[in-house]
Parts: sequence; structure tokens; C-alpha cells
Amino acid sequence: MAKYLIRGMVLPMTGEHDFYPQGEIAVENDFIISVGPRGSKPDGFEPDQILDLQNDVIMPGLINTHTHAAMTMLRGYADDMPLMPWLEKKVWPFEEKLQGEDVYWGSKLAFAEMIKSGTTAMADMYFFMEDVARAVIDTGIRAVLARGIVALEKETGLRSLKNNIELFEKYHGAGAGRIKVYFGPHAPYTCPGDVLRTVKKEADRLGTGIHIHLAETLTEVETIKEKYGLSPAKWLEQLDFFGGPVLAAHCVHLDEEEMDILRKNDVAVAHNPESNMKLNSGAAPVKALLDRGILVGIGTDGTSSNNDLDMFSEIRTASFLQKLVSGPEALPAYTVLKMATVDGAKALGLDKVGMLKPGYKADLISVDFDQPHFYPRFSVVSHLVYCAKGNDVRTVMVDGCLLMADRQLFKIDQKEVCTETENRAKRIAEAVG
Amino acid sequence: MAKYLIRGMVLPMTGEHDFYPQGEIAVENDFIISVGPRGSKPDGFEPDQILDLQNDVIMPGLINTHTHAAMTMLRGYADDMPLMPWLEKKVWPFEEKLQGEDVYWGSKLAFAEMIKSGTTAMADMYFFMEDVARAVIDTGIRAVLARGIVALEKETGLRSLKNNIELFEKYHGAGAGRIKVYFGPHAPYTCPGDVLRTVKKEADRLGTGIHIHLAETLTEVETIKEKYGLSPAKWLEQLDFFGGPVLAAHCVHLDEEEMDILRKNDVAVAHNPESNMKLNSGAAPVKALLDRGILVGIGTDGTSSNNDLDMFSEIRTASFLQKLVSGPEALPAYTVLKMATVDGAKALGLDKVGMLKPGYKADLISVDFDQPHFYPRFSVVSHLVYCAKGNDVRTVMVDGCLLMADRQLFKIDQKEVCTETENRAKRIAEAVG
Repeated sequence: MAKYLIRGMVLPMTGEHDFYPQGEIAVENDFIISVGPRGSKPDGFEPDQILDLQNDVIMPGLINTHTHAAMTMLRGYADDMPLMPWLEKKVWPFEEKLQGEDVYWGSKLAFAEMIKSGTTAMADMYFFMEDVARAVIDTGIRAVLARGIVALEKETGLRSLKNNIELFEKYHGAGAGRIKVYFGPHAPYTCPGDVLRTVKKEADRLGTGIHIHLAETLTEVETIKEKYGLSPAKWLEQLDFFGGPVLAAHCVHLDEEEMDILRKNDVAVAHNPESNMKLNSGAAPVKALLDRGILVGIGTDGTSSNNDLDMFSEIRTASFLQKLVSGPEALPAYTVLKMATVDGAKALGLDKVGMLKPGYKADLISVDFDQPHFYPRFSVVSHLVYCAKGNDVRTVMVDGCLLMADRQLFKIDQKEVCTETENRAKRIAEAVG
Repeated sequence: MAKYLIRGMVLPMTGEHDFYPQGEIAVENDFIISVGPRGSKPDGFEPDQILDLQNDVIMPGLINTHTHAAMTMLRGYADDMPLMPWLEKKVWPFEEKLQGEDVYWGSKLAFAEMIKSGTTAMADMYFFMEDVARAVIDTGIRAVLARGIVALEKETGLRSLKNNIELFEKYHGAGAGRIKVYFGPHAPYTCPGDVLRTVKKEADRLGTGIHIHLAETLTEVETIKEKYGLSPAKWLEQLDFFGGPVLAAHCVHLDEEEMDILRKNDVAVAHNPESNMKLNSGAAPVKALLDRGILVGIGTDGTSSNNDLDMFSEIRTASFLQKLVSGPEALPAYTVLKMATVDGAKALGLDKVGMLKPGYKADLISVDFDQPHFYPRFSVVSHLVYCAKGNDVRTVMVDGCLLMADRQLFKIDQKEVCTETENRAKRIAEAVG
């Protein structure tokens, strides 16, 4: 922790017209203490280090609201297949062989990629979550972690729930507060009603939130309707599942009544356009959700259905996909950039995160704008949304700690994490046969 | 021109399973003379320079089959608007102010971006095409140039046609053969039948091809049906427009009969998924086109409807969009990569371009695979399609000439082109008011 003075073009995401072409940000420990034009730092502020980023745009770090980080281990292992054979013959047999240490390294690879592409916080759902938590602590990223609870067999479900509670007790608030623990009931079609009720009770008891998949595919909607006679969101409402913080991933197939239920219950949605396209799930009704005032963040989902963790690419796809289905005015640049920063932070219940302003956490990134694809500079926001790629990011700071400068990672040995995951993934694939 | 020996992982795109994990390519002047595993260069071949790219994948350069390069000048100038106000109030008034020198610099900026993102050849349609040709010659890229002919007023149309003929006479075969000149009748709805007939006659007389927009929007289809009582492709067929090389951009809204017409006449399609999404044009029936055996290349369209020229991003979107509309098996990785290389070159009628094999032109790129988003390495092809971004490209060679190494451009002064376009674009925007 130190005092930094960071200079460059500053896009604080505090309002559509807030921009300092020659700006500066003062950081002390984990907090931003001032943001403004050059020369606006508080009197007497003596930085330990000045980051001179005159050709960069400095903005809040991106928030990835839905991912399964350790699935990097399966990147490129199987693509272009129909859903069920892909899951049954490829993904599940591979995942069955994963050990805690594999999940640690797979998560670390994911966090290396996230940091290198400007993501400073993410909501993760997987298993061996204590190993994920270790990777979060080691890499310096911010995370909302949930133990994926699949309860098709009751005992497995209850064991996972217990595991989630232990994760909460051990890691909620760990990493100097960078880790929050949520509950992770996988989906309405993989958790029976009583399990969902128990999860909700436990979340309330511990005062935390829930991360769940909801209405991802038409098959899911049909299954739930057949089983319970209700649409998925309606079914959850009837179970009294809502009320506390709920982060619902996908929400591709919702009817009007379900959207009203989400709105009424302040459910936050994690929109994953690239995964939804790649798996042929559909186009989520994001414009309709936003028009209703529902909070929508953006997520990449896991790398086996994406296949990268580049949030800049995801932002762009979110806007393009919505323009395709709802017209060219849908999801304009500032709206979608706000979804990936301000709203993403809110969706994850992260306090004082998502904007650059005094009193906020020093979670920020810089994007190298001195490249042909950022000229001419008619609009910094348009360029960030429609032209920026993850590897345009040069600098990343989380919680006041510099995680990357000039594209060099400080807390991750890139060579080591690439080699480790390569070896582990290949060994597992061989074992699967 | 020189002799190069290039070492690295080699993906020649000569067949789905052709790959040399430790490969080498020998280049002499503008041609590839050998491709194979390490040590396969011809006896006695003495390179002037060895390019050691052990961590890179070397592959054919990408072919951008449809663009309006100088529209980089409008990048970020206007987004998120309905089509007609966007054109009438923003794009057209800006374009009216463009001079030849602006088009030269705008094209040069585009070619800088293209080269930096791995594109080695492109089909461009715009105006002031002699200035575009100059930029092609100066930057070393390969191009098929067409003068956009809009003939809503007959005289303007004929002037443009004359201009296109002059362009052919002056620049076809220029740049040591890197430039081909096509004819560029803009679209069936902007050129009356007699103009289209005359264009076709001139193209036949000069023995060259035609680049045209076709069936981009539903409005266009309705307009043509109303005017001529036929679908756009049927209308062109009736005009005897087909027969020679025709490159049809977009083809979003085609009926079965039109697809048969395209197939029968060997029309090549330039698919522009990102532009089609951003402008709400629709999703082209690419799977159906491919199933019929129609040649489909990929293009970015201009930067005011994209907003970048990153072909890696475009490839990925092409696959994702088709998976969204046609199922998860549509456009698998190798197919879409082939569309952007082998098939793109064929679509542009480029001889001995699009693959790495002896006797082919030395148009190649290297992609830096030593990054977290390319691990684990289950599939190089999957990673190139689903994970690579334009700025992962490290090396670019066109016609045996090294245009970029280690991301440094050799024939373009990046600072100069960025500054020039910035100044010119801002001046024009001010004049538009």
C-alpha cells in the first residue's frame, strides 16, 4: 500500500459527461482521495509514486458479474458441439477429474487473463472454492465467491451447502476485505424447492447474497413449467427465494411477469451475451430489463463457452447483440460501459466500487489509447466500447495495489501459471481419454 | 525483397489437420518456397534473415472482403442512432467534405490498423480511389479497389463509372501486382438497371470483377421488389449482371431462389456480421449459404458501423452469430478461419493467396501465443477463432515484404498517421457543424 498520483485522461464513470482530458487521481492506501483535472490533488499530498499515463484513458476496473474461473482448464477442449453431448461427453467427465490444486491453478490463469484485460472484480461460481479463494488472495483481484450447489441428489446438495457455509465462515471478508462469499445454488432445475428454501434461510442467517443461474435455456423453462406449473422466476418467488441480494445469471427467457418479479425484488441480472450466442441459448431481453429499471451487469461465463474472459469484448458484444434484436439505438455506448462498471459493482453488492471518486476503492485500469484503432478521438466512450480489446489495458490497480503496469503482472508469475495449467489440463484430458 | 527463414508453430490452412508445432517457412522474394517441420527448408537455401517466432503461430494473413477504409475518419463520430438520421445528418454531410488527401490519410490509418491486427489483403469500395491506391502502394498491403458508383442521378453515376475505368487503367496491377481494380456499383437500389448493365459490360471488356452491396436490409429488399417486382438477386440476374467475378457484400436477406442464383453464378459473398448487428440489419443466412456451396468471405465493413477493422474479432462474431441463429454446431472454428483466409482470397480472386504453401505469395502473420488467454493449448484453431484479438498479432508480411515485426510498423509512421487523421477529422467535423 502506498500513495500514488496517477495522471492521464480520466473517465470516472460518475456521469455521462464527466471526463478530464488531462486528469489526475490521488490514491492513498486502498482508497481514491481525489479525482479531477491536472493539479487538483489535495494540498500537501506527497505521492510515493507517480504513474504518468498521458496517452491512456484511466477508468474504473471492469466487473465480470458471472464466471466459472477455473474452467480455463477446459479452454478449447471441446467446441462447436450440441449442448448435451458437449456436457455429457466432454465437460462433466473432465470436471470430475479436477482436484483442488487444479482449480487453484485454473483460477489463477483466469485471474491473470482477467487482470491483463482490465477486470478488477468478478463473481465466481464453481467447486473447490477454498482453492479459488486462495488464488484470489494470491493474485490481488476482488471476488464474490459462491460454491456451486447442485442438488439432483439430496446428499450431494447438502454437502455442497455445508461446504458453502464453511467457505463463508473462512473466507468472507478475507484478502483484506476483497473476498465476499455468496451462496451458489446452481439453478432452479438442479436444486429442488426445499434446497432452495434452505439456501435462502442460510443466506439470510449469515447476511449475505445468492448467485444463481436463471432461465438460461428454453429447455430449462420448459422443465420448470412441467415440474412446478410455473415459470422459473415465478417458482422462485413462490419459494420466498427473493428479498435478499440475488444475482441471477443469464435470464435469457423471461416473460413479462417474471421481469416484474425481478424488478419488484431488486434482483440483479448478469448478462452473458457471448456464452448465450455460442451455446445457442438466445438473446436476453436486456433492453426490456433496463427499461423496467432492473440492474444488469455483464459477465463472460466460463471459458468453455466463450472462450475468453475479455470484458471489453463482452461489452461490445452486449451492445451489438441488443442492437441486432432491439434496434440500433439499444444499449448505447455509455449505458453498456456503465453496466460493466458502476452497475456491475452494484449487482455484486460491492460498496464504493465501480466509479472513480473520492472515498471509493482504488480499483482502476488504464487503456493505451495511442494506437491506430483509437483514432480519430471523437468519443472516448465509443472507442472504449466499440474498439477496445482486453490487451489494450496497460495498468491495473485493485484496492490501491498495483497488479499490472506496462502489461507486466506483479503478483502472478505468468510463465509459471501458463506452464502449470498446460501440464495439468493435458494430464486430465489424457485421463479422461 | 529478401530471403527469410521463419520459424514457429505453423498453421498453413491447407487442410484441417495440417499443423507443424515446430515448423519453418522459407520465403524468397514475394513467394513461399517451402513449408514444413523444422529442417525442411531446401538444401542450400541461405536466408538473409531468420525470424525466430517459437511462441507464435504463423498463419496466412487475414482477408477483409468488404470495407470502406477511409471511413476511419468517422470512427466514433456518430453511433447508436437509427439508420436514416445517422446517414442523413451525420455520415453523408461529413463525407461531402472529404477531400482526396483526407481519404489518403484515412485509408492509411485503416491500413495501419489492418496490418496491426493481421489483415494482409482487403476489398475496398469508396471514392477518391486513386488516393486509396496511393495509400495501398505506400503501406504495402494487398487490395482489390472499387470506385463506389452511386447513380441516383445519372450524370454522377456515369462520372463515377468513368472514374472507375480510369482507376482500372492507372492502378490495376500497380504496387508490384498488389492492387487489383474491380468495379463498384454501390447497390441495386442506388444504381438503375441500365447503369448496372453498363458496369457489367465495362467489367467484361476489361476482364475484371464487380464489388456490390446486396440485400443488406429489409428496406432494400422491399424497395427493389416494389420497383422491379423481383427480389434483388433475381433482378440482377435478369439484368445479366452475373457471370464474371462478383463479390456481393452483406446478403443478409435472401430467399431460397436468390441463394440458388448466387450459387449458379459463382457469386462470392462478403459477410459482415458486426456491421449487420450494429446497424440492426439482421443475421445473414451464412450456414445456408455454405451448405449450398456458396463461397463466403468475412469483412468488417467501414469503421462507422463496426467500429474497428479487427478481423479476429469479426471471425469470432461470425461464428457466434451463426451459432445463435443456426445452432451450436454452425460455423465451427476451422470453417470460419478458412472463410477469413483461403475462401476470402478466392472471393477476391487473388491468385496463390490465402494458404501457406510453396508457390504461394508470402502473405503471412504471426500471433503471439505466449499469453494467458491461449492456455491450455488444446486447440490452436479454436484459440485463434475464439480467443485471439487483433493486437495479439506480432509479425506481418505481405508479398514477401516485412510490414510489421514485434508490433512495430515499418512502412507507416504511426504517430504521423494518427496525428494527421485526428487533425483532419476534427477539422471536417467542425466544418459540418
